[in-house]
Amino acid sequence: MIRVKVVGATGYGGVGITELVLQHPEAKLCALVARDDVGHKISDVYPHLDGFCDMPVLAADDPNANEPADVVFFSTPDQVGMHDARKELSKGAKVIDYSGDFRFTTSEAYADYATRIGKSPAHASPDLLGSNAYGLAELHRAEIAQAKIVGNPGCFACSCILGMAPAVKHAIVEPYSIICDCKTGVSGAGKKVSPTFHYPARYEQMNAYKLAGHQHVCEVERELSLQAGRDIKVTFTAQVVPVCRGILSTLYGTLTAPMTEAEVITLYREFFKESPFVRIYGSTAAIGTLHVRGTNFCNLIVSVDTRVNRLRIVAHIDNLMKGQAGSALQNMNLMFGLPENMGLHRSGIYP
Amino acid sequence: MIRVKVVGATGYGGVGITELVLQHPEAKLCALVARDDVGHKISDVYPHLDGFCDMPVLAADDPNANEPADVVFFSTPDQVGMHDARKELSKGAKVIDYSGDFRFTTSEAYADYATRIGKSPAHASPDLLGSNAYGLAELHRAEIAQAKIVGNPGCFACSCILGMAPAVKHAIVEPYSIICDCKTGVSGAGKKVSPTFHYPARYEQMNAYKLAGHQHVCEVERELSLQAGRDIKVTFTAQVVPVCRGILSTLYGTLTAPMTEAEVITLYREFFKESPFVRIYGSTAAIGTLHVRGTNFCNLIVSVDTRVNRLRIVAHIDNLMKGQAGSALQNMNLMFGLPENMGLHRSGIYP
Amino acid sequence: MIRVKVVGATGYGGVGITELVLQHPEAKLCALVARDDVGHKISDVYPHLDGFCDMPVLAADDPNANEPADVVFFSTPDQVGMHDARKELSKGAKVIDYSGDFRFTTSEAYADYATRIGKSPAHASPDLLGSNAYGLAELHRAEIAQAKIVGNPGCFACSCILGMAPAVKHAIVEPYSIICDCKTGVSGAGKKVSPTFHYPARYEQMNAYKLAGHQHVCEVERELSLQAGRDIKVTFTAQVVPVCRGILSTLYGTLTAPMTEAEVITLYREFFKESPFVRIYGSTAAIGTLHVRGTNFCNLIVSVDTRVNRLRIVAHIDNLMKGQAGSALQNMNLMFGLPENMGLHRSGIYP
Amino acid sequence: MIRVKVVGATGYGGVGITELVLQHPEAKLCALVARDDVGHKISDVYPHLDGFCDMPVLAADDPNANEPADVVFFSTPDQVGMHDARKELSKGAKVIDYSGDFRFTTSEAYADYATRIGKSPAHASPDLLGSNAYGLAELHRAEIAQAKIVGNPGCFACSCILGMAPAVKHAIVEPYSIICDCKTGVSGAGKKVSPTFHYPARYEQMNAYKLAGHQHVCEVERELSLQAGRDIKVTFTAQVVPVCRGILSTLYGTLTAPMTEAEVITLYREFFKESPFVRIYGSTAAIGTLHVRGTNFCNLIVSVDTRVNRLRIVAHIDNLMKGQAGSALQNMNLMFGLPENMGLHRSGIYP
Repeated sequence: MIRVKVVGATGYGGVGITELVLQHPEAKLCALVARDDVGHKISDVYPHLDGFCDMPVLAADDPNANEPADVVFFSTPDQVGMHDARKELSKGAKVIDYSGDFRFTTSEAYADYATRIGKSPAHASPDLLGSNAYGLAELHRAEIAQAKIVGNPGCFACSCILGMAPAVKHAIVEPYSIICDCKTGVSGAGKKVSPTFHYPARYEQMNAYKLAGHQHVCEVERELSLQAGRDIKVTFTAQVVPVCRGILSTLYGTLTAPMTEAEVITLYREFFKESPFVRIYGSTAAIGTLHVRGTNFCNLIVSVDTRVNRLRIVAHIDNLMKGQAGSALQNMNLMFGLPENMGLHRSGIYP
Repeated sequence: MIRVKVVGATGYGGVGITELVLQHPEAKLCALVARDDVGHKISDVYPHLDGFCDMPVLAADDPNANEPADVVFFSTPDQVGMHDARKELSKGAKVIDYSGDFRFTTSEAYADYATRIGKSPAHASPDLLGSNAYGLAELHRAEIAQAKIVGNPGCFACSCILGMAPAVKHAIVEPYSIICDCKTGVSGAGKKVSPTFHYPARYEQMNAYKLAGHQHVCEVERELSLQAGRDIKVTFTAQVVPVCRGILSTLYGTLTAPMTEAEVITLYREFFKESPFVRIYGSTAAIGTLHVRGTNFCNLIVSVDTRVNRLRIVAHIDNLMKGQAGSALQNMNLMFGLPENMGLHRSGIYP
Repeated sequence: MIRVKVVGATGYGGVGITELVLQHPEAKLCALVARDDVGHKISDVYPHLDGFCDMPVLAADDPNANEPADVVFFSTPDQVGMHDARKELSKGAKVIDYSGDFRFTTSEAYADYATRIGKSPAHASPDLLGSNAYGLAELHRAEIAQAKIVGNPGCFACSCILGMAPAVKHAIVEPYSIICDCKTGVSGAGKKVSPTFHYPARYEQMNAYKLAGHQHVCEVERELSLQAGRDIKVTFTAQVVPVCRGILSTLYGTLTAPMTEAEVITLYREFFKESPFVRIYGSTAAIGTLHVRGTNFCNLIVSVDTRVNRLRIVAHIDNLMKGQAGSALQNMNLMFGLPENMGLHRSGIYP
Repeated sequence: MIRVKVVGATGYGGVGITELVLQHPEAKLCALVARDDVGHKISDVYPHLDGFCDMPVLAADDPNANEPADVVFFSTPDQVGMHDARKELSKGAKVIDYSGDFRFTTSEAYADYATRIGKSPAHASPDLLGSNAYGLAELHRAEIAQAKIVGNPGCFACSCILGMAPAVKHAIVEPYSIICDCKTGVSGAGKKVSPTFHYPARYEQMNAYKLAGHQHVCEVERELSLQAGRDIKVTFTAQVVPVCRGILSTLYGTLTAPMTEAEVITLYREFFKESPFVRIYGSTAAIGTLHVRGTNFCNLIVSVDTRVNRLRIVAHIDNLMKGQAGSALQNMNLMFGLPENMGLHRSGIYP
């Protein structure tokens, strides 16, 4: 059994991976670490776990939190994992970090990202960069399988990259024409309270935010440029919608040459033929984010506006699953040589 | 493997049992029957099942729908199962019916119920009554295990009966003092559209309905009277709240003698000690319906208003799980000698 | 024109009275005071006011905040108005306070209330008690018209008192039999963020809280006892439902003698015949909280469970209007000799 | 007083204009006509109107429905008003139609629209085309003031046209580069029930629809082309979000030459300087659809993605107000020589 330690266990990303590990046939929890609620049972913090996981929340320096683990999930804010990963690695663990700390493989790329989020541009462990992998399994399966450290993708980024990767790979869209119009449920902002996510302030409210620049743009452009083999730039709009879970990203790009919807679908299905969590649909499919809630799927609708020769992809994910804990578990499976979808093969519930 | 046939497969109760059977280690679907969407794949009707269950929806008289099954779930409106159960029984299947058709064991009790819902009071198969069991496992485990037909409880009724059964069993509340103030999410009304459940008409709307008398009162009073060994009458209020899943039932009864909260908790824990899906909490527990969503649990808060000597129980269930498909699967497990919680031991996801 | 000063202008109660005064033909805002956002325009804090009210938010000691006003609304937490009212009174203003500070007319009654909410039981201005009025216009119209200080009722209390006042006045229910099962939208908790009211924690969540005792019980029992002319005790349950605005209070009481619904309706209509904001309905009315949203109405459904001889009243209000700012403006109208419904005669919008 | 007749009074568009006329100082309702609920009081259909408007719903051929009116609002589906407007005109009334029937001034333009919505392309009253005006006051104030018939704009169209009109007028964006990514609340689909808008099917659901082509594209392209003086084509995506009211349209266009946000804001403010219902904000404004709910405002955020030289406008309206009944009343004001914002100068309520 893979021994799993979760750091940041009391946040949404932490409870998400905890839920998944509890149902995974080859993994078990060995320690839950957090800064809040230390000494409480996790099932006091999250009562739905009552009887499923009643382990205590431990402080980072608690001896019980420092027994050897096989994998450590850092469900922590930016610039935590970059400091603490080394110690875990030295004890033989593999590391999966949810933040931006290990999404980039050079100090320069990291500095660009860190600057955008108003953090110090210096990476605390630059020597570890290069040995890490970007944790989007559909594009980096082999590297993830070899990596000691995986930087789990941002939730918006995940939907945008999966939605546009085949198109840029095959150069069917103009490289500077891409627009990512993204809508997220409120859980994407995490567990921390703020006036913006106070229930009454959010009820019947839709809005755009961070119009000046969202940090996920870095990884979207980096990944799409990698696929394209040339520079890709995108216009990115983040919007919040009053649901709990779900990202709906509508992606646009000008076609370099006319194509039919059927042709694009063929190309997308071929691209994702080894990816069990990506499902491709035509433009008449009656699907929405509710159909991926609680699952690790990314559903993509392919549509072509032939009047103006524009490709339009609608990507649907659960921001806390494929956009966070689900991808993290998928990465763990790959890192330990297990089937990619172990513990993740679930349909969700409806309605 | 238990071969499962679902009649009424395209409603919420049908898709609920379909989801559960797909994850059950000892059962498999053999036929999905419905009146709507015949000929379509169930995954076209419910796209979240795409890749999990792509079986066709069959008409009731389709030969493929009439291969032998070990159990047939009738997720159908009142007065369907009472006609069709006999044929399934004759082929050797056991029957679990979601409607009121088999919740009562005498023609008289059924007639009372049927009258309330504006249906013909005559039961179509009165000879089958008496061999059926009321499908609330926590109170009728042994009978369910022996029964060929189980009448699955109503969703409101499930929460009220579980919440008050220990109190009336031990005669700690006055028999005519019980009030059931029940709030349900909208999915309790099923898949059928109506102006009342149209999204804009329901947004930011709370209301009481059927104040003149709700059909679930019959089974609540019957079951509580059975536990009490004397006549129990309740005042029942049904209310709708704009969420999808969840029932919150606040139950009141005048104590026959002063008791502390701790004493009542002890009594309730003892009553439910063999019931894996009932969890008992004190009055300071910070729990709500979200903590049972997607699960088969019934969480009960025990509280005593000592100023006026009144017991107050707050019951939380997922109306589509413990209130419907979850209880149905729990009953199947009992009828086939399997552990009661097989395929149901799940915590749900949060948030 | 009545010059209006609002203290606590940046909270929900403050913006509510600001919106109302902006549309009132005989009143105008003269100062907006708050602790947060001082120096900002109120329309920066609440952008829907852009172009309607662009006054600055002032600190309490700002000279511009201390020009004479005719009425001062204290939309402030408990134990603010009790300190600051005197100064406003001395300048000739009348005072309407939203908190519990002036809901009680004796030091003893206040101490009971304050103890429940964990505050010091000593009132800071006990000499002012006795000259204040309880601001529920339907029951205290004449006193409010004479008072210099009005203590605006609690939102839950408003619904419970209006719903049960006729019944206890006419002694048709047993004095210790009353149960108030109350459900509120989240805005009732105000603007202050908390983990409990964080959007994802509240989505698809219903729960009871403060089961050990809610502070509104004091004023409900005091007011109902006053109407009854004898001691009344109630069991009170506060519950939160994930909408923004609305209170649905279902009130129960054992009838002292059998009565029909029609008889009770007659009695209620007579009781409220001078009250423009109370509408009485029979048990088949298809109404809910959405039908009073944004208005000052209290809609009451009357129902009798004849099987067990129990009266049931369903009260519907907008917690921020009749439950807060609407009642406050209604009180202002009375205090200044204006028609009770001036500036409040609005239907709301649907859906 | 302007006598107002509403046809289609029981739909959302009908009740919307009814609410507005009730508060308008120069207009009064003279007849409410509908196909459903004939003979019932409108306040039985919409209980929030109880005491405000208790007029009966009349059949179209009821004599009381055919007394002379000064203005008739057709809040009816496509191809109703085109038949019935003539009779009203002949009696001296002016006509405001909510459907597409009078949004186009030539038979050809109408035929293109009608084909898109699957209707007969032939206009029933082609001779009336040409004398009608497109009811977007901000662009057609003078024509509306002269017109006998006004075709009220589509809700999505209203947001897209207002958002892009200044940009195309000044030719600052490439004519075929425009993308309209539109999200609407569910009330945009009207009062008619459907499985798609059933509450549980819509809860926590976001989705795109009509990807093959939405009928509002016709009028968006026509109006923008008129402003530009050249052909404009747009890619349009309609999406539904689970709120009741609100449209958030994010509009993109490639700048023909680099511009700063400040320059574009200046240009937009100049364009709308006579328009009381358009408010212009910079990219850091913390506004959303909640801030225009219940009002006739269109709030526009201006943003420039300088990295790729792209203009981005975020338009916020209430789909039932500026997107429907509010614009209709604004048009009535113009047609009768009244101030444009009479009866519409309201801030809405928050939260």
